[in-house]
Amino acid sequence: MKILKYMLIFVPISFVAEFLHAPSYIMFILAALSIIPLAGLMGEGTEEISHYSGPKIGGFLNGTFGNATELIISFFALKQGLFDVVKASIAGSVIGNILLVLGLSMLAGGLKHKTQTFNKKVVEVSSSMLLFAVVGLCVPALFTHTVDQSLLNTRYEGLSVIVAIIMFAIYVLSLVFSFYTHKDIYSINVEEEGTAKWSLKKAITVLVVATVLIAIESEFLVGGIESVTHSLGLSEFFVGIILIPIIGNAAEHSTAIVMALKNKMDVAMEIAIGSSLQIILFVAPVLVFISLLFTPMSIVFNEFELIALIVAILIANRVSNDGESNWLEGVQLLAVYVIIAASFFIL
Amino acid sequence: MKILKYMLIFVPISFVAEFLHAPSYIMFILAALSIIPLAGLMGEGTEEISHYSGPKIGGFLNGTFGNATELIISFFALKQGLFDVVKASIAGSVIGNILLVLGLSMLAGGLKHKTQTFNKKVVEVSSSMLLFAVVGLCVPALFTHTVDQSLLNTRYEGLSVIVAIIMFAIYVLSLVFSFYTHKDIYSINVEEEGTAKWSLKKAITVLVVATVLIAIESEFLVGGIESVTHSLGLSEFFVGIILIPIIGNAAEHSTAIVMALKNKMDVAMEIAIGSSLQIILFVAPVLVFISLLFTPMSIVFNEFELIALIVAILIANRVSNDGESNWLEGVQLLAVYVIIAASFFIL
Amino acid sequence: MKILKYMLIFVPISFVAEFLHAPSYIMFILAALSIIPLAGLMGEGTEEISHYSGPKIGGFLNGTFGNATELIISFFALKQGLFDVVKASIAGSVIGNILLVLGLSMLAGGLKHKTQTFNKKVVEVSSSMLLFAVVGLCVPALFTHTVDQSLLNTRYEGLSVIVAIIMFAIYVLSLVFSFYTHKDIYSINVEEEGTAKWSLKKAITVLVVATVLIAIESEFLVGGIESVTHSLGLSEFFVGIILIPIIGNAAEHSTAIVMALKNKMDVAMEIAIGSSLQIILFVAPVLVFISLLFTPMSIVFNEFELIALIVAILIANRVSNDGESNWLEGVQLLAVYVIIAASFFIL
Repeated sequence: MKILKYMLIFVPISFVAEFLHAPSYIMFILAALSIIPLAGLMGEGTEEISHYSGPKIGGFLNGTFGNATELIISFFALKQGLFDVVKASIAGSVIGNILLVLGLSMLAGGLKHKTQTFNKKVVEVSSSMLLFAVVGLCVPALFTHTVDQSLLNTRYEGLSVIVAIIMFAIYVLSLVFSFYTHKDIYSINVEEEGTAKWSLKKAITVLVVATVLIAIESEFLVGGIESVTHSLGLSEFFVGIILIPIIGNAAEHSTAIVMALKNKMDVAMEIAIGSSLQIILFVAPVLVFISLLFTPMSIVFNEFELIALIVAILIANRVSNDGESNWLEGVQLLAVYVIIAASFFIL
Repeated sequence: MKILKYMLIFVPISFVAEFLHAPSYIMFILAALSIIPLAGLMGEGTEEISHYSGPKIGGFLNGTFGNATELIISFFALKQGLFDVVKASIAGSVIGNILLVLGLSMLAGGLKHKTQTFNKKVVEVSSSMLLFAVVGLCVPALFTHTVDQSLLNTRYEGLSVIVAIIMFAIYVLSLVFSFYTHKDIYSINVEEEGTAKWSLKKAITVLVVATVLIAIESEFLVGGIESVTHSLGLSEFFVGIILIPIIGNAAEHSTAIVMALKNKMDVAMEIAIGSSLQIILFVAPVLVFISLLFTPMSIVFNEFELIALIVAILIANRVSNDGESNWLEGVQLLAVYVIIAASFFIL
Repeated sequence: MKILKYMLIFVPISFVAEFLHAPSYIMFILAALSIIPLAGLMGEGTEEISHYSGPKIGGFLNGTFGNATELIISFFALKQGLFDVVKASIAGSVIGNILLVLGLSMLAGGLKHKTQTFNKKVVEVSSSMLLFAVVGLCVPALFTHTVDQSLLNTRYEGLSVIVAIIMFAIYVLSLVFSFYTHKDIYSINVEEEGTAKWSLKKAITVLVVATVLIAIESEFLVGGIESVTHSLGLSEFFVGIILIPIIGNAAEHSTAIVMALKNKMDVAMEIAIGSSLQIILFVAPVLVFISLLFTPMSIVFNEFELIALIVAILIANRVSNDGESNWLEGVQLLAVYVIIAASFFIL
């Protein structure tokens, strides 16, 4: 994706703009445009390192750094106390991965290849995990919304920490599952990796520099959220659930679409569903743990997030069940995403 | 279905009754008994025309006229401002198709053929589409029910128009899918069609006359709704969600059951699921567009309709997933329908 | 399961404790520890009788006595007017069977056998039935929660009786399905039964004695519920939805796990899903009918029970769809159960 490389020009531009005290909504836009190629660079760096580290550590690195951008942005939002933005971006990442990324992949791939088939077995393992993970994550929220709110206070955070510990434990166990007890299921993907283009030193340097720059740009981005909500008339919730996930995951998304065009629908689906899983099992609990250092954050989603999450997993399960995809299925996923986004915009 | 032909006697009876100023609940009953055979005649006329027009235009005609009765009844209800009846009948058609029609088909077919199998592939395409369509249609309603109602006013209709445009676009795209890019999936059904029994002229005449008569009877029917709710103690909601869908779809329903008895379970399921799809992707948006000429109608379903719709698609997905049906499955679908209808009756 | 036999020592201990007027929370614990082995004995007795009665009556006896313990405990709770405990224990049995029992079975079996496969066809029939049954059972509750509570009063019970009659009718029809019209589907299980170890007389004696003792212990248990909620700080709801189902089903649960360890995952799943089905189609309606003798009980679940039930059937459907299980899937089911239980404990 060469266009991503050219977008790196926004990194120095954003630094100049910050130096010139540009208005914060301009900083938000520039930071967004910088983070997209930096996240791509980070992904490339991680993949190069995995050629040297072997598939096991490589898989772990890919899993962990795959959502590093998301994690860094959320970290700064958390530090600023923007809990609603953080929670919305967790839900928004899952929705975006399932509806937007899978939708675009199926549309692009389906227009080129008519009907695309994928290995149901592999995708079903992930989509089952996603169902269980989303259900586990949502249960406390579902219960709390039906309870008289005044009865609850500090208990919220206690329950969130328990859920976060369980989710994180499942994340660790799923690594054990993938890399030790059931590694044969995933063996197909491992073979496709090819050879390294960069030296290990270059790869590590790129990774470190990209991470640092993403951190800086994330601070610009988060600093501009309040201003954007005023200037552009968007709600904080809309920024969190629609914009931030698109910014944080754009690089990953483009990879999924490229894979769909290459008729590797399995890989495209694994990226979309796998990335959603990592958000729920890794990013969300880590953010809860980090929040204990500042002000404890509960992962109790609001009704909108719950509905959107439940819609997303129902669709993910249906889609994976099928074993096939075509352009019309892609259009329908995108239609649901557009309707959800339009509802959030209007409400 | 010869019995349908004999029921045409209610058409002249209803005209005489109207001439004699019969009470409007009598007109409601006579109109209902007239519409059932007229809808059957309309279906027959459409099918005959499709023998002359070739499968492409024929498929389109079948799709469009298949729910014409529903559309005409709803048109007059809309004109009278009976929005709740219109919305209830949209939801009721989907529920009736999935639970009542499929239930009766599986029961009747299962008693005769023990275990009936159907082509999972074809049915899964439709039931996936149904899931996405219902979800898309329900998302605005789900969101609005969780929002403080006073915050919303004209925005409702704006969102409904967006959803209607998206649904209608998917309807057009699904025709492109069925008749151009993926026509081979549906080729099996096309072959079974046989030859024309009527001349083209006769077919067109029948279609036109049936449509005109249905329009007149629909006006009688809608005119009697208010009176029925008073005389028989039924709620408008019950009339909309249970009675009108049964009246509007009875002819189609009998075809599905006949197909199930002939052990063509695929066709029976396609009728039930396909008809539900057309209601959501074609009838509902067209009604929203027409309503803009009078008073704009929002397609925000109430909680009862939402629950019933979600139940119906969950069951449709489960049933299609199976690849098999038997009489007990039919009994269970009917049981869920009876429980829903009883709840609506009591509440 | 030899350990179950040793636990029978708690039966005389509980009688001595009752004689010495032990505090009622002690009686609750002793009764719980007595009921577990007695339920196991009752199961053994039923199975022995079925060797003499032939598979048809045997299957019926197994089905009916399989949940006798649950029924007896609920009977005494009903007599004491503890409606919330009864309803919670119905929901809790379904949740416990699907999440706790299946989770433990998959974990235990998966650790020993890596990936376990099961006959999708058989399990899908049961899990479809479970979906329809839960949906039918929940529909009245879903509707009533969205209605202004003050509008409803005696209508509740009327609707509950209708639902109970329909559920019971489906139970009877499902016996007709299993033992007459479609008995071949279940033929595999029948062959595995082996020969009788006990004489018919001994089997009947054991069954009668166990039933009588369970009835006495259930009265101790129910009598201690109020005291337990005070002494141990548990809510009645928690006792009903978590503790009572574990006590009532422990013996059955251990059988499922033993089957999973023997790599008979089909049997383990049939126990868990079949037992849930019997709770809904047999135990729940019978309790409604019995309640008409005392104070009529409605089966309108509260929001917590509804959410937990819906979560459980979604997961049961997903799991059965798969055709395979492994330890990670087991861990995830257990995680959802722990999160639900923790939420109930905290709320």
